[in-house]
Amino acid sequence: MSWEDYVKKVIPYVAGEQPKDHNVIKLNTNECPYPPSPRVGAALGAFDATTLRKYPDPNVSELVSVIARRHGLSDKQVFVGVGSDDVLSMAFMTFFQSTTPILFPDITYSFYDVWADLYQIPYERQPLNDLFQIKKEDYLKENGGIVIANPNAPTGISADRILLEEIIKANSNSVVIIDEAYIDFGGESCVPLIEKYENLLVVQTFSKSRAMAGMRIGYAMGSEKLIRYLMDVKFSFNSYTMSAIAIAAGVASVEDETYFQETTAKIVATREHTKTQFSRLGFRFPDTKTNFIFATHQYVPAQELFEALRAHAIYVRYWNKPRIENYLRISIGTDVEMGIVIEFLENYLKNREKKGH
Amino acid sequence: MSWEDYVKKVIPYVAGEQPKDHNVIKLNTNECPYPPSPRVGAALGAFDATTLRKYPDPNVSELVSVIARRHGLSDKQVFVGVGSDDVLSMAFMTFFQSTTPILFPDITYSFYDVWADLYQIPYERQPLNDLFQIKKEDYLKENGGIVIANPNAPTGISADRILLEEIIKANSNSVVIIDEAYIDFGGESCVPLIEKYENLLVVQTFSKSRAMAGMRIGYAMGSEKLIRYLMDVKFSFNSYTMSAIAIAAGVASVEDETYFQETTAKIVATREHTKTQFSRLGFRFPDTKTNFIFATHQYVPAQELFEALRAHAIYVRYWNKPRIENYLRISIGTDVEMGIVIEFLENYLKNREKKGH
Repeated sequence: MSWEDYVKKVIPYVAGEQPKDHNVIKLNTNECPYPPSPRVGAALGAFDATTLRKYPDPNVSELVSVIARRHGLSDKQVFVGVGSDDVLSMAFMTFFQSTTPILFPDITYSFYDVWADLYQIPYERQPLNDLFQIKKEDYLKENGGIVIANPNAPTGISADRILLEEIIKANSNSVVIIDEAYIDFGGESCVPLIEKYENLLVVQTFSKSRAMAGMRIGYAMGSEKLIRYLMDVKFSFNSYTMSAIAIAAGVASVEDETYFQETTAKIVATREHTKTQFSRLGFRFPDTKTNFIFATHQYVPAQELFEALRAHAIYVRYWNKPRIENYLRISIGTDVEMGIVIEFLENYLKNREKKGH
Repeated sequence: MSWEDYVKKVIPYVAGEQPKDHNVIKLNTNECPYPPSPRVGAALGAFDATTLRKYPDPNVSELVSVIARRHGLSDKQVFVGVGSDDVLSMAFMTFFQSTTPILFPDITYSFYDVWADLYQIPYERQPLNDLFQIKKEDYLKENGGIVIANPNAPTGISADRILLEEIIKANSNSVVIIDEAYIDFGGESCVPLIEKYENLLVVQTFSKSRAMAGMRIGYAMGSEKLIRYLMDVKFSFNSYTMSAIAIAAGVASVEDETYFQETTAKIVATREHTKTQFSRLGFRFPDTKTNFIFATHQYVPAQELFEALRAHAIYVRYWNKPRIENYLRISIGTDVEMGIVIEFLENYLKNREKKGH
C-alpha cells in the first residue's frame, strides 16, 4: 500500500500552445487580436498596491454592479468568477445535483464532460445533426440540467434565440445554462430571457471580446434565486477568489463601451472578409458568429494543413477526434495576420496542385 | 418538482468583516499591517496591459521558479494557486481519495471540514489537549490523509518539527499536508523535510507575511510526484487560474527578500510587546508564533470584550463555538494600532472594575 493509492488519477486537458516566440501568428486559442481598452492599463497604473495587504471584496460588488448595469439587470442577478471556466464549473456543482443525466451536444466545449465527471454528474451527449446544429427535440426529454454553448465551440454556429427559448421554457424543472463565451461577435444573447425564466443561467467572459484572457474574469447572469445559490456555494468553500486588481481592471473595461463596440466590430469585419477568401480557396465551414472559423478543405486533409501552417509559424487548432478530424479551428486575428494566413494558404494550395497531388 | 430540487444546499462561511470605514482598526482577518514590497507596486506600474489579451502561462513558470529558488527546491517541487484556500482545496481533492477518514485537529482552520464535505472525504477530528496542543498518538492510527496547520489557527501555537516529522514518517502510506499560512512569524517550517518524505506537502501563502491578500496567491511544496499529481488534477479541469498580473506581482514580492525580512521582524516585535501588555491586563493566551494572539481574559467574558472593542471601531474575531467561546483572536497591527487597542482595553477594564463588576 502507498499514499499513491489514494490519489485522484486524471487525464489532464491539453490547452492550445502558448509559444514564447513572438513571431508566431497565434490563431489557436481564440484570443482577441487587439489589446484591452486603454482604460484597463490606466486602471492598473492608478491601482494603489499598498491596498493589496487587505483581502479583496468577497462580494466583488463594484464589478458586479457595472456588469449588471450594462446588461439591464440588478446587482443580485450577477455572479463573477475567475474566468468563465471557474463560473461554469461552480454552476455545474451548484445546479446539477440530480441523478437524471444532464444534456449537452456531442460536439461542444470540451470541459462540460470534464466538470460532470469531476462532480460525479451523470450526462448524456446529444449528437448535433450533420450540419453541426442542435436538434431541439434532444433537449425536450427528462433531464437533470442542460448546458448549451451559443454560439457553439468549436463550430462557431449560433442557434436562434427562439429555439433556445423553447428549450428553456420546456425545462422549468431543471437549470439551463447558456454559455455565451463568443456572443459578442454576432450571436443573439439569451440575456433578455432572464426576466422570464427563473431556470436560465447565462455565462459570459472577459477573455474573448474584452481581450482580457490574462486577467481571468467570467460571470453568470440569471434570476436572483439562481445567483443566490451560486454565491452560497462559492462562500461555502472559498470566499476570496477575485483579486482586487481583477476587479479594478474589469470595471475599467466595462466602462469603456465605445472601445468594446469598435474592437468587436473590427473583428467581425475581418471575419467576414476571411470567410470570403476561405471560400475562394476551397474551404467549407459552418456560418460562424464567433471570432473563429471552423473550416474543412474540399480536398486537402486538415491535419496536413495544420502541420503546414505550423511549420510556417501560424498556429491554429486541430483535434484528431471523430466527426471533426478533418476540421481546423482558426481564430480571427488582425487584418494583417489574416492576410498572411490567406496568402500562405493560397500559395500552399497552388504548389500542392502543381506537384500533382 | 422544481429545478431547486437539484441545487446543492450549503451553509455559507461567514468571513471576517471587511468594513468600508477607514477609521476602523481592523484586526479580524490576520492581514499584514504593512503594505507589500514597493517592488510589487513597481511591477504593477510596469505591467504591459496590452499583453492581457493573451491567456496567462498555465504553468505559472516564472513565479514557480522564484518560489522554488527561495526555498532551495526545484521548479518541479512547487505548485501555485489562487490563494492557499485554492491550493489546499485542490490538494484535498487530489490526495484524499481514501475511504479511511482523514485526520485533523478539532480546533483548527475552519475550511478543512468544509473541503472534506465538498469532496465527500470522510474525516475524524482529533481533539487538541487542554493546552490546545496536538497529541502525537492521535495521528499514528490508520488514516486516509492528515492535515495540520502549523502554527495552528486560531490558537497560534506552533508544533515542534520533531513531533511533526514523527507523524509524517509514521504515515508514509498517506499524504500529510502541513498548512504553514503563518510560518514566517516564527514557527519551524517543515520545508527541510520535503527531501526526506515523498508524502509531505507544505502549503504557504502570500496573504499574510507578504501582505498580498488582495492578490490571491498561495503555493504548495513537496516531492516531484506529489506536485505532478496536483498539476494533473488542476489541468484536468481548469488550466488558467493564475492571472498574468498575479504572476508578475508575486515574482516582485519574492525577489525582495530584505523587505520581507524587515516587515515580518517588525510584526514579531510588535507581537512580543503586545503579549507583555496583554499579560499585564489579565489576558491569558497560548504562546503564539503567528501574527495574531488567541486570548482569553481572566474574568471578563470574550463576547463582552468583542462587543466593547467593536463599539470602539476595533474589529477582532470571535467565535461562539465550544471550547473557544471565551477567546478572541486579535491580529497584530502596527505599533500605533496595538497601542490604541491596549489603551482602550486598559481603560475599559478599569472602568468596569470601578462599576463593581
